[in-house]
Amino acid sequence: MTVGSDVGAAPDAETVTATVVGGSGFTGGELLRLLAGHPNFELVEVTSRSKAGKSVGSVHPPLRGSDLRFTEPDDLESVDVLFAATPHGVSMGQIDDFFEIADTVVDLSADFRLETEAQYDEWYDGHEAPEYLETAEYALPEINRENLAGADLIAGGGCNATATILGLYPLFEHGILEGGEQIVVDVKVGSSEGGAGGGEASSHPERSGVVRPYAPTGHRHEAEIEQFLDTSVAFSCHAVDMTRGASATNHVFPSSPVSKGELWQAYRGCYEDEPFVRMAAGGSGVYRYPEPKAVAGTNLAEVGFELDPSNKRIVVFSAIDNMMKGSAGQAVHAANVALGLEETAGLEFTGLHPVGAP
Amino acid sequence: MTVGSDVGAAPDAETVTATVVGGSGFTGGELLRLLAGHPNFELVEVTSRSKAGKSVGSVHPPLRGSDLRFTEPDDLESVDVLFAATPHGVSMGQIDDFFEIADTVVDLSADFRLETEAQYDEWYDGHEAPEYLETAEYALPEINRENLAGADLIAGGGCNATATILGLYPLFEHGILEGGEQIVVDVKVGSSEGGAGGGEASSHPERSGVVRPYAPTGHRHEAEIEQFLDTSVAFSCHAVDMTRGASATNHVFPSSPVSKGELWQAYRGCYEDEPFVRMAAGGSGVYRYPEPKAVAGTNLAEVGFELDPSNKRIVVFSAIDNMMKGSAGQAVHAANVALGLEETAGLEFTGLHPVGAP
Amino acid sequence: MTVGSDVGAAPDAETVTATVVGGSGFTGGELLRLLAGHPNFELVEVTSRSKAGKSVGSVHPPLRGSDLRFTEPDDLESVDVLFAATPHGVSMGQIDDFFEIADTVVDLSADFRLETEAQYDEWYDGHEAPEYLETAEYALPEINRENLAGADLIAGGGCNATATILGLYPLFEHGILEGGEQIVVDVKVGSSEGGAGGGEASSHPERSGVVRPYAPTGHRHEAEIEQFLDTSVAFSCHAVDMTRGASATNHVFPSSPVSKGELWQAYRGCYEDEPFVRMAAGGSGVYRYPEPKAVAGTNLAEVGFELDPSNKRIVVFSAIDNMMKGSAGQAVHAANVALGLEETAGLEFTGLHPVGAP
Amino acid sequence: MTVGSDVGAAPDAETVTATVVGGSGFTGGELLRLLAGHPNFELVEVTSRSKAGKSVGSVHPPLRGSDLRFTEPDDLESVDVLFAATPHGVSMGQIDDFFEIADTVVDLSADFRLETEAQYDEWYDGHEAPEYLETAEYALPEINRENLAGADLIAGGGCNATATILGLYPLFEHGILEGGEQIVVDVKVGSSEGGAGGGEASSHPERSGVVRPYAPTGHRHEAEIEQFLDTSVAFSCHAVDMTRGASATNHVFPSSPVSKGELWQAYRGCYEDEPFVRMAAGGSGVYRYPEPKAVAGTNLAEVGFELDPSNKRIVVFSAIDNMMKGSAGQAVHAANVALGLEETAGLEFTGLHPVGAP
Repeated sequence: MTVGSDVGAAPDAETVTATVVGGSGFTGGELLRLLAGHPNFELVEVTSRSKAGKSVGSVHPPLRGSDLRFTEPDDLESVDVLFAATPHGVSMGQIDDFFEIADTVVDLSADFRLETEAQYDEWYDGHEAPEYLETAEYALPEINRENLAGADLIAGGGCNATATILGLYPLFEHGILEGGEQIVVDVKVGSSEGGAGGGEASSHPERSGVVRPYAPTGHRHEAEIEQFLDTSVAFSCHAVDMTRGASATNHVFPSSPVSKGELWQAYRGCYEDEPFVRMAAGGSGVYRYPEPKAVAGTNLAEVGFELDPSNKRIVVFSAIDNMMKGSAGQAVHAANVALGLEETAGLEFTGLHPVGAP
Repeated sequence: MTVGSDVGAAPDAETVTATVVGGSGFTGGELLRLLAGHPNFELVEVTSRSKAGKSVGSVHPPLRGSDLRFTEPDDLESVDVLFAATPHGVSMGQIDDFFEIADTVVDLSADFRLETEAQYDEWYDGHEAPEYLETAEYALPEINRENLAGADLIAGGGCNATATILGLYPLFEHGILEGGEQIVVDVKVGSSEGGAGGGEASSHPERSGVVRPYAPTGHRHEAEIEQFLDTSVAFSCHAVDMTRGASATNHVFPSSPVSKGELWQAYRGCYEDEPFVRMAAGGSGVYRYPEPKAVAGTNLAEVGFELDPSNKRIVVFSAIDNMMKGSAGQAVHAANVALGLEETAGLEFTGLHPVGAP
Repeated sequence: MTVGSDVGAAPDAETVTATVVGGSGFTGGELLRLLAGHPNFELVEVTSRSKAGKSVGSVHPPLRGSDLRFTEPDDLESVDVLFAATPHGVSMGQIDDFFEIADTVVDLSADFRLETEAQYDEWYDGHEAPEYLETAEYALPEINRENLAGADLIAGGGCNATATILGLYPLFEHGILEGGEQIVVDVKVGSSEGGAGGGEASSHPERSGVVRPYAPTGHRHEAEIEQFLDTSVAFSCHAVDMTRGASATNHVFPSSPVSKGELWQAYRGCYEDEPFVRMAAGGSGVYRYPEPKAVAGTNLAEVGFELDPSNKRIVVFSAIDNMMKGSAGQAVHAANVALGLEETAGLEFTGLHPVGAP
Repeated sequence: MTVGSDVGAAPDAETVTATVVGGSGFTGGELLRLLAGHPNFELVEVTSRSKAGKSVGSVHPPLRGSDLRFTEPDDLESVDVLFAATPHGVSMGQIDDFFEIADTVVDLSADFRLETEAQYDEWYDGHEAPEYLETAEYALPEINRENLAGADLIAGGGCNATATILGLYPLFEHGILEGGEQIVVDVKVGSSEGGAGGGEASSHPERSGVVRPYAPTGHRHEAEIEQFLDTSVAFSCHAVDMTRGASATNHVFPSSPVSKGELWQAYRGCYEDEPFVRMAAGGSGVYRYPEPKAVAGTNLAEVGFELDPSNKRIVVFSAIDNMMKGSAGQAVHAANVALGLEETAGLEFTGLHPVGAP
């Protein structure tokens, strides 16, 4: 018997039954890993059309030793929570079926992130279940904790949007920005954002060592950022050589001068009681600012800033693990809040040091 | 308050007080991280001459948010267990002092790994406390569990030796090897083996992307391997581009033919009940054999093999995280056994997927 | 006899004698490599205090097989050209000595990049030979070719400044920008920028896999950019996981709308006859925009752009090898121009595909 | 006009016309790059069914700026030399057609590497043109220079076989080995060996950071090694995190003791006049033994050794760039020899320092 081999076993504490739909991809695997180590969730089923019948450990090494196998996504049992880790556009077509078997649905795709059909149509192509857009709650507890409690439908945030929103949010909350100011967001992301499989551009020889402009304009995560911060941003993404991680550098030009003290006040005000936000703004040592490798494998966001007096700029850094805080970890965190569980349950891992390109 | 910020707080269950001597290096930091997440250990002090006064989180990002600070290694309080993560040669000079303040000492250096002064002199330079060599117990529970229970002095195994021994041990236990056969061990290791700091060869421009012969002959870990398996091995090391990890490829030439079934019997016989050994020998998918990145951050060893009928060779693979199973994790595991705690306590992490160069 | 072993041998064509002062560092080694493969230069001496007496090949693998050895930097022979690859602040103190033995001096440090003592004092500390600032010519032929012909003192541009200037220059040349517009420059750089040796932050375990804010504000290369483009920029640097390379993403907000056609006209107008600038702006395939790995080892700059109609932004990308176009290659290019040699002599290498993290 | 844009232009010196069949893969691109920079070859056509009509630069960044486009592989013009960079099994079916349009054929696949049909059948599946096996010449000039002069059909060696053979050859030439001794070959290879495209195992998230056993037994390159050295070897391969490179560690157990002096004599005797073999055996500095990153982009093989007196073992290291000395570079070198051109023509590049994971 190996550590981790009790995946799917009944937990001791208050038990919540769960099913993961679409469990063979990267975020699906991450969800399985988190639920297996969670004190409250009991994993009932994991579906995957392409891997049905195979053991979850044959696809996801952290689950080696588990007896759990992928099943076809039909005739699912009733559970308390259904997590959907399917590609964009799938959940919207099955959302009614989901609610027939589950009280709470947490969707990790982009299908329910935006609030109106008009917004969705602007950035994506035609929504199949627009009536759910209004009721769905965005999964980021730091900006939406109150509404998550008891929510039926939870929409996991986009990873780049999550990093950006967490970086900029305190500036808006504390009136340093009001909307309309110039904001340039330059994001660096790892290869797991492309999902399992991948094509030529994701092959190791072509992808390793890159600083590759990716969606330099028109990135869909802009929609989420602008929805939650109520301002427009100039957003660009670059693929860099790591597997996990998203790092947002936000170049912000406030209309009035601001001091470092005011910035600290804004960020501490928003985040000092947040269990998953860690400030890193200056100081000594190697790790002075947020870095994706410092949060790899964790549900933490690191946030920090520097002030450039010469051009009246605030440079805000935020770093997350795109698979965790940017996806599966955020989903579990939101589910914890929605169901009234301990917020940090199953998400206590604080990272590794040193760690290479995570 | 951030996840991880309760480092050093009193645990709920049976409490064991602990001090880490030499806590600013990589293995020291890994120990701190493990002890902080352990249900039984209460961390009392962490020493570091060079970083005294600094917070542990300023050196080790996973401990950011902790109030713990490094102290000078003088006038230490009495504790149940002292972990020494000092460089080779330091513990032997302080071992009497260590036992004045602690009932149990777990040393992670090479100082107490060998059984006799003669062995030590052959591979290192002059032992200062040879009287402890005989009583010290090697920390690898898979081969030494019985003797670890109640042990006073525990010597953590070398990372490359640990990987090699775990790979070869079942062949000796099950009589497939008897000693004297030809064994070539070709190890690939990550950069954290060089420790924090490092010189020119460890600088990123020189170290990245390498397949660099490192100690091609005469590596000191040979001594441990030969001591525990009672046979000689032809051992070579290569530095490769990862931070964590050690992977041993053991080319073994048994004197009589062996079948795959016999091999499975040998390895299952030794390891099927071991909580920290995972077999990976063939099968389908991407991860068919042991890989360091599949165990990064965990205390797991992956072990597997392949049979080459054309040249009567068994190729045995074993992969560990050199910082965990190869050092700090092994130390905590051994301490758990020595103190009668749950064996897997504090070591439940099962790894990440995907993960880059860990 | 190995390829490359004729380093220092007399060339066939028009011969220019050269000495490299400070040849043991990264840029020094790159210079040696380029001069050894150059049809016109005859390398007379290479100095290094720390490596005096050692063969150049023992430090720089591409020169293995060469008979050349480092010498003490005293009593240097007279040569046509002296290349100084010493750390910032050294050349200014020796510049008179340099001119006693050489007609032309090419300095790769920051000592002579700025035009006035006041500028220098603002960004660095006290210039020792300010009288040379006015006469020194910036080494970038694309913006300064005319003045380089026959120049006595040539100042190699900073790598990040070079990437940025080459990206933005056509916008100013063609009136799309006039100065005063908002420009955010977000640069990603490799570890060779830190030079040989390096400290803790440059060690492989700490440096690998990073997206690390580095000089988020107040980077000295801003001075060069602002001097040559006569506008201010909001500049930030990030260390990413590669050894060679600098990639600048320039977010530019022109005061009047501009079309893609106008942009193409501006960039083609400036660069279509430039031997070392390659446009990469859209198209199909994996490599649509500039990438440092596509120019690794070459003296090429790749420049490209994308237009974001939604926020009136031009995103300009430029990628170079910081050791080549950003340092030694630029120096040789400038020397070629200054001495009336073939511009591309010794700089014909067009890169590798695929290549990892160069 | 950019450096490299004269691809396909007529060279100055003695002109040899050439066509590359299968030019869109990695080795095809490498051939194009080398021929474009070669003083004698004039590239006439480059075929690719999948990329027909596209410019070579859109697939291979080093050829950006070239006017050359891929053509369908039908109705090819007559040329002096045809290089075939097609997948294994293709050339054997087209070899008669190749000789209708070319006097000399250089095939980079495995189709003509083995000498007899029986050998081929043992390692591959059924040869379609076995009559060519006997006349084809293995492309490695270091062991086959005499036979290459004037050869009609040249078979490029496998990359891992090339590294291994170059490492072991002097031991056989100088009677230190006679055949039948124990030899273990442990090879580490980069991701470009898998070719362009690649599947799930080659995707960046799964492939980065690996030390992955790959063909641990039964690797087909064993056949070449055993054919040329007339002995059997125990051969295993591991994928490691680099794009280019193959590094062979050969653990050799001679039947009689050997001294370091004898080893030096053997290796110098074989290689001191070889333009593409560089010895690296001990010495000081960072680069003491062969390393793939020290030869990345070059046609050089680095060879070195260490003697292990304790177990009578010679450890022989050899490192090459699998795309160059292990494929396209070897092909051009062999063609140079076959056609009586300067041996080193077009292959003078001596590598980069520092370079990351090439």
